[in-house]
This record gives sequence, C-alpha cells and structure tokens, in this order.
Amino acid sequence: MSLISVGTMAFDAIETPFGKTDSIVGGSATYVAYAASNFVNPVQQISIVGYDFPAEEMNELKTRGVTLDGVEIVPDKKSFFWSGRYHMDMNGRDTLVTDLNVLADFNPRVPDSYQGAEFLMLGNLSPNIQISVIEQMKKRPKLIVMDTMNFWMDIAMPDLEKVLKMVDVLLVNDSEARQLSAQYSLVKAAKEILKMGPKYLIVKKGEHGALLFHANEVFYAPALPLEDVFDPTGAGDTFAGGFMGHIAKTKDISFNNMKTAIIVGSAMASFCVEKFGPTRLKEITKADIDERIQQFVQLVSFEINFE
Amino acid sequence: MSLISVGTMAFDAIETPFGKTDSIVGGSATYVAYAASNFVNPVQQISIVGYDFPAEEMNELKTRGVTLDGVEIVPDKKSFFWSGRYHMDMNGRDTLVTDLNVLADFNPRVPDSYQGAEFLMLGNLSPNIQISVIEQMKKRPKLIVMDTMNFWMDIAMPDLEKVLKMVDVLLVNDSEARQLSAQYSLVKAAKEILKMGPKYLIVKKGEHGALLFHANEVFYAPALPLEDVFDPTGAGDTFAGGFMGHIAKTKDISFNNMKTAIIVGSAMASFCVEKFGPTRLKEITKADIDERIQQFVQLVSFEINFE
Repeated sequence: MSLISVGTMAFDAIETPFGKTDSIVGGSATYVAYAASNFVNPVQQISIVGYDFPAEEMNELKTRGVTLDGVEIVPDKKSFFWSGRYHMDMNGRDTLVTDLNVLADFNPRVPDSYQGAEFLMLGNLSPNIQISVIEQMKKRPKLIVMDTMNFWMDIAMPDLEKVLKMVDVLLVNDSEARQLSAQYSLVKAAKEILKMGPKYLIVKKGEHGALLFHANEVFYAPALPLEDVFDPTGAGDTFAGGFMGHIAKTKDISFNNMKTAIIVGSAMASFCVEKFGPTRLKEITKADIDERIQQFVQLVSFEINFE
Repeated sequence: MSLISVGTMAFDAIETPFGKTDSIVGGSATYVAYAASNFVNPVQQISIVGYDFPAEEMNELKTRGVTLDGVEIVPDKKSFFWSGRYHMDMNGRDTLVTDLNVLADFNPRVPDSYQGAEFLMLGNLSPNIQISVIEQMKKRPKLIVMDTMNFWMDIAMPDLEKVLKMVDVLLVNDSEARQLSAQYSLVKAAKEILKMGPKYLIVKKGEHGALLFHANEVFYAPALPLEDVFDPTGAGDTFAGGFMGHIAKTKDISFNNMKTAIIVGSAMASFCVEKFGPTRLKEITKADIDERIQQFVQLVSFEINFE
C-alpha cells in the first residue's frame, strides 16, 4: 500500500499575528510525509534539497517510514526558501521572499524501487514536472491526486490543462477553483473543473472547511473551530497527506471513503496550525489523532426524525 | 406551542448580480413567519406597518396560521423601506436607502391573547424595543432568542448589554460576533459573548454555514452549496424562523435539539435565497422541506471506523 509523494522540501520564514520564525523546515512534501506516515508505510518521497537541508530532519522522516531514495541532494546549492506574512484572517498572505535555489533545476526521477506504487500525490509544482512523474510510472497508480495554484493558471495554463486530464482528484482552494473555472459559484466551478479531467474535486476553504465534488454528489467537511490558528503554513499539504494516508491505508477509492479521508485530512490540518511549521505534527500520537477525529464526528452529528 | 415573533414587516428594493426588484414585501418578522409557520401554529406576530402594506400579504400570512393581533397599522404613514445592493460574493452589501417611516414610532404592545407564549423570537430591532417586549411578558417564555446587528453595538451598547442578560440565545453573523466580543477567533468570541448573558450563541456565516456554541460544546452546520444564491435578503431571518419553528414544534430546548433546529433553519434559508424576497418560501411544501433536510443529512454524513 505504498504512496509516492512529490513536492518540495524546503525552508520557510513565517510571520503571523502571533509571532515570527526564522528559517524553519517546510515544503509541501515534508508536510504530506509527516501527515501520511501516520497511516501508510512507506511514504516514498520525491523531492530536491540543497546542502543545507538538515540531516536530522531526514532521519526523523526515515524513522517514520518515509523513503528518501527519490530525494535529490544538490551539494553546491541551497534548498528552496519561502518567506511570507499572514493577515489577521489567516486566509490572506503576502509573499516576502521566494528563492527557488535547487527548485529551479528540479527534474524528478522516479526510482525503480518506487515503481508499482498504488497511490500518487503530486504536490503543487509546475505542471510539466507533474506530467513527467506520471509518465515515468510504468503502471498507472490506482489514484493520482494533484495540488496546484493560481501561479500555474497564470503562466502555464496549457500544461495545467494537460496534467488535469491525467489525474483523478484535484485539490485546490476556493479562489483557485474560481480562477480555474471562471465561475464564482463553487457548485458551478466544480461542474466546469470536473469537465477538465479530474473525476473528483476537493475545494479547501480554510477555516470554513472543505467540499468534495464528484458527478452530482457533494460532501461538506467542516473545519474544527479553533481558539487560535497559530500558523496556517502547510495546513493544505497536511490535509492532503492525511487524505492520501487514509486512502492508501484502506485502499478504497470510493466516494464514501473519500469523505472519511477528508475528515482525516481535516483532523491532521487542525493539528498543523497549532504551532509553527511541522512542529505539532511531530508531537502527536495515534491516540491524539483518534480523539481529534472523534471531535469532528461530534462537531457535525445531529438527529433528524421525519414525521 | 405558540411562538411570538417580533420584528419588521416592510418593503425592500433589492439589486443583486442576478437582477433587480422594485419594492417588494420583506422585513424580518415576515421571513420568520413564513418559515416558522411550516412547523408551529400560531405564529403570533408583533410588528408595525403603514397604510401601504398589502392586505393580500396579511391574508396570506393568516392563512398560514400567523396571528396579526400584535401588528399595528398606522393609517397615515408608510411602512419601513430598505433598499440595498449586494456584491458579487453576496456576503457584502451596500445600503442605498433606509426610510424608517412607521418604524420611528414603533412601541410594541404584547396583546393579552399572546400572553403565555412559550417561545419568543426578537428580530433585529433597537435593544430598548426588545427589552420592552420581554418586560411585557407576564410569564417568562421558555426560550427567548434575539437577533441584533453592528448598528446597535455602535450606538446603543449599554442597552444591548442589558437585553443580552435577558435572553437565552443570541443569533448574529460572524462579523457581528467579532465586533461584539472584540475577538477575531470565533471560538474566543463565543467565550466572551456567552459571558455577556446568553447561554447559546449561533454564528451565521452565510455560504459557510453556521456555528452553535454552548458552554464547551460546539456544532457546525454546513450551508447547502448552491449553484446560485439569487437573493440573500431575509436568509438570516428565514434561518431564525426555521430554527424557532422546530424548537416550538418539539418543545425541546436541549443542545441536541438545537442542533437539529439549526439544520432545519439552514434548510429553510437555502430555499429563501433561490428567488427574490419571500417568493420561494410561499411555494414550498412539507415534502420539499423534508427532501431538503435529507440533502443536509447526505451533505455531512461520513463513516469512521476506529481500529
């Protein structure tokens, strides 16, 4: 039940209304790995880092069953670096610095040992890189999920359209869904996007939860109301990791099981935002996760008696 | 199982991205009555109108079991009139015209025939008017629910604080909850507001659903994702009407039953926004309502198997 996760392993410097960090470990594939490894083993990582990425972080990931054969280490360059400042509502943020560094030359190679993986998570990267990974798979995975962002819609729409035809699930936030579909209503946006290739669309709405669309069905997962969203960095990737982890663990790609996977992803994301970076994800146990999922059950359960 | 509903019966002229109306019937108590009368009979209305309020609307309400003994008709003045324009996201709106007309002299009198009502819904009005109605009740109703808005927080905070101590449930939107509590986090806002008097707080978040807070418990009701929100006018009042209608019908004021009442309210609100004004609320049947509630059950249901 292996899962390949492709994405960045990087450094972030973050400012929120609650505080500020110097450069700390981040990157989409880092968050996916920390979340998914609670559910599935191995998580087969594909990424690129510079000489500066900490060996202890690599070891921590290995301890959790994350395979790093597909992580290229460039000895004479730095890792990807992003710095940003969040607004009070934590939905908006300003990018302060983007240093591509090693990411400028990222040309991922799928190791032979990864072939045959049943599940593939494509983090937000250039559509060309996403296509290259899919094309390297000798056997198409059972489920391919991709993330993307408005940046690629602006500069690489033809490539994005191509990769959309190759995947099963698209994972975007609400403003990205609106931009991609040119529809304001998310129901209409979903209809348009499901015509572009993916059979499933997940729309992340931050503190307002997430929606799953498939054919004429829709599922609404709430976000857990939190006292403080301390740092939202990585929450979307952690959600993706929880989602994919549950799917890979259960090997069930039905709509019904995707609903459960979204709750698992939401639970994982709710931990992520409690501390800076992936800190909280390294602390939690299976018991913590089960308890959090139980809170989601409580949060939305109600009784209806038709008379 | 009678319910008193206090609020405006008025005219609105509405502009949305989908169209525009001349003056049509509106007002908070109108929406509450159309929604609640599906569940409880009588709905005992307290309001004030001018000579121009249509007799056929009064008759339509009576047909549905709405008692109008508490509706004062002022023969030489016009009814309250509001005109507004909604933004594309339908959450924001600009007020174009507010003509208080009869509302400037509204001094509601609770008819003797209304005494003994078990449930009281106080629509958004000046806190002084809300206090006056509560004080006129010889026996305190089993449940008092109030709506309010930022306007009263700006100009009548001491009165608002007084009425908050007299009610059981406060119903506001997210920005109002934030203003009232001076807290951005809705969880923190709820903690502050629950210290101000009400034992329950309902935070309406429009297309993002609604939250119910009580002591350390929280419930998240989704909004039904809709292709188009045609006209949001009255959606909050319709929600309140559905909520109160269900509570009055079941006479159960437990947290558990309030959760169900919020789903009923959300279902009623989802009809309201489908057409201009209360049009859609006059068309729907019990079967339509049951079917819509069933859609909410589907929308949020998921399975978790802990291993």
